[in-house]
Amino acid sequence: MTIECPTPRHEDEVVLLGHGAGGRLTAELLDRLILPSLNGEPGPLEDAALLPGYRELVISTDSFVVSPLFFPGGDIGSLAVHGTVNDLAMRGAWPIALSVSLIVEEGLALAELRAVMESLGKAAQEAGVPVVTGDTKVVGRGAADRLFVNTTGVGQRHGSLHPSAALARPGDAVLLSGPIGLHGTTVLSTREGLGFEGDIASDSRPLHRLVRALTPYGPDVHVLRDPTRGGLAAALNEIARDSAVTVEIEESAVPVPEAVAAACDLLGLDPLIVANEGCLVAFVTADAADDVLAAMRSLPEGAQAVRIGEVAAREPRGRVVLRTLVGARRIVEMPLGEQLPRIC
Amino acid sequence: MTIECPTPRHEDEVVLLGHGAGGRLTAELLDRLILPSLNGEPGPLEDAALLPGYRELVISTDSFVVSPLFFPGGDIGSLAVHGTVNDLAMRGAWPIALSVSLIVEEGLALAELRAVMESLGKAAQEAGVPVVTGDTKVVGRGAADRLFVNTTGVGQRHGSLHPSAALARPGDAVLLSGPIGLHGTTVLSTREGLGFEGDIASDSRPLHRLVRALTPYGPDVHVLRDPTRGGLAAALNEIARDSAVTVEIEESAVPVPEAVAAACDLLGLDPLIVANEGCLVAFVTADAADDVLAAMRSLPEGAQAVRIGEVAAREPRGRVVLRTLVGARRIVEMPLGEQLPRIC
Repeated sequence: MTIECPTPRHEDEVVLLGHGAGGRLTAELLDRLILPSLNGEPGPLEDAALLPGYRELVISTDSFVVSPLFFPGGDIGSLAVHGTVNDLAMRGAWPIALSVSLIVEEGLALAELRAVMESLGKAAQEAGVPVVTGDTKVVGRGAADRLFVNTTGVGQRHGSLHPSAALARPGDAVLLSGPIGLHGTTVLSTREGLGFEGDIASDSRPLHRLVRALTPYGPDVHVLRDPTRGGLAAALNEIARDSAVTVEIEESAVPVPEAVAAACDLLGLDPLIVANEGCLVAFVTADAADDVLAAMRSLPEGAQAVRIGEVAAREPRGRVVLRTLVGARRIVEMPLGEQLPRIC
Repeated sequence: MTIECPTPRHEDEVVLLGHGAGGRLTAELLDRLILPSLNGEPGPLEDAALLPGYRELVISTDSFVVSPLFFPGGDIGSLAVHGTVNDLAMRGAWPIALSVSLIVEEGLALAELRAVMESLGKAAQEAGVPVVTGDTKVVGRGAADRLFVNTTGVGQRHGSLHPSAALARPGDAVLLSGPIGLHGTTVLSTREGLGFEGDIASDSRPLHRLVRALTPYGPDVHVLRDPTRGGLAAALNEIARDSAVTVEIEESAVPVPEAVAAACDLLGLDPLIVANEGCLVAFVTADAADDVLAAMRSLPEGAQAVRIGEVAAREPRGRVVLRTLVGARRIVEMPLGEQLPRIC
């Protein structure tokens, strides 16, 4: 169900929408072009990076280009806060400061800009993180689509949590904190006027308190990741690859809201590769799984947490396998591009 | 010589190019719309903010939208490194980490993206600052103009330096580290094919080593600022306002390269409000001025440092006054918008 784009190999080729979709094309662009230019090593890429010289601090950046700017359950302002807060949280960190940088298209109504900024301010306040610095650029009409927002965050790690995409181990339970597919289908439906947006809303929300609730189980929490661009399929494939393990999930256990399933059926989308902005996957030791699930369920944002699978020792490593409703097993591939551009 | 734009007052009004130009319109947008939304206080805005809980760390963010992407003396990649390194340096800080976030228009040649990223990587390496994390988004054709780059940096302050735009004091000498007007006129000439770009080049360069050279004079260094958007006029006006002092500068002392003067004459631009990306103004005690000048001149990026004026106790405060070549005195106003869009 992925878009069939040619893999870029030659210098006469160009950037495709799929290069920004968080799937295989994004990984190739990073490994072949961006990281070599920066003298970076191809390898596990985490949601946030350690700050040199300050082992307890992490930093994460995200530019938000979602279209439309406003959608049920959120807008580009709140999304920009939640997205970066969550990237920090996935490294076991509590957000301590955000920067906000705007690129505005000439002609945007000040009322719209105000609405976005008020939503951003409210989201930051609710998350308890101050916006400490910012920047505003304006480009001429047609040089940008209304408004883009970059947020960069610094977070302080909980001493007991050291999750990494490379730390999944055979036997780990795979937990999911809530239903999938809401954000991507909501944004798409709103943008295209498909009509589902009356029944669903984005799950955009901050997850740092949910992560804090896991601190008592520190060493048992191996991996945390929020399945944003590329959806659950991309997140699990990255973990399987970076940890060199096989991840097995049970189709019947993955919560897909009815309206999401209906929208995906109609549109030919696979809910596994639709973006989320308010849930996380946690890989934890089997022994701690029940306690961690209970801790997650004690908070509203984790009320619907479930166990969806486990890590197998099976070969070949680096795979994600779905046990289907009829008992078959199918490989869940890393999405190539993504079905839904500009969902975050 | 400023653009006559109406000041936005009503909610039915829209964002203008001048709102992003670093002058009065930018200040109004910040004070009236953005800061209130973020529960921020109108007041002195520094180039970089202190990180809560870590008094020695500062953070700064900038989105770069320069057009064209490549110009004599630099490109959007090197500029994105220098701009953020310099914002950190203006708070007396040494850069310790950068994040890089790209917004790419579908269809950009991979070769161009590679050239930008290699330049960015080289600039970061030469500045000695690691790029620790990043993000890449792609938007459809026409939804962005080729490539926008956000860099956010974290810097560690030199213990002895605590410059602030609010610390200028009567009697301070005003020093300028190099000639003005090169960056803005180069970018404009390149974009519009005016022909001056053969004679001039952007001054884009990192200034953190120049700032480090000032650490022996710590308490005598009151203000550091790089006159980017809005040029020297905007930088000095911000300092005059935030410190509630009158800044007097000598026209004959301000170094304007011949080719910059020629381009500005032809185009009707005032070099004082043209953006720079490789010089700084320093307000230092009169006693330390000669030593600080000598320290600046000991480095290539400060070789042409000069004293251009001083801080007067004169009323009314908050003004910048230029003593002209013919001995007259004229007020240097805060630019309203700016003459040159998309120069950084």
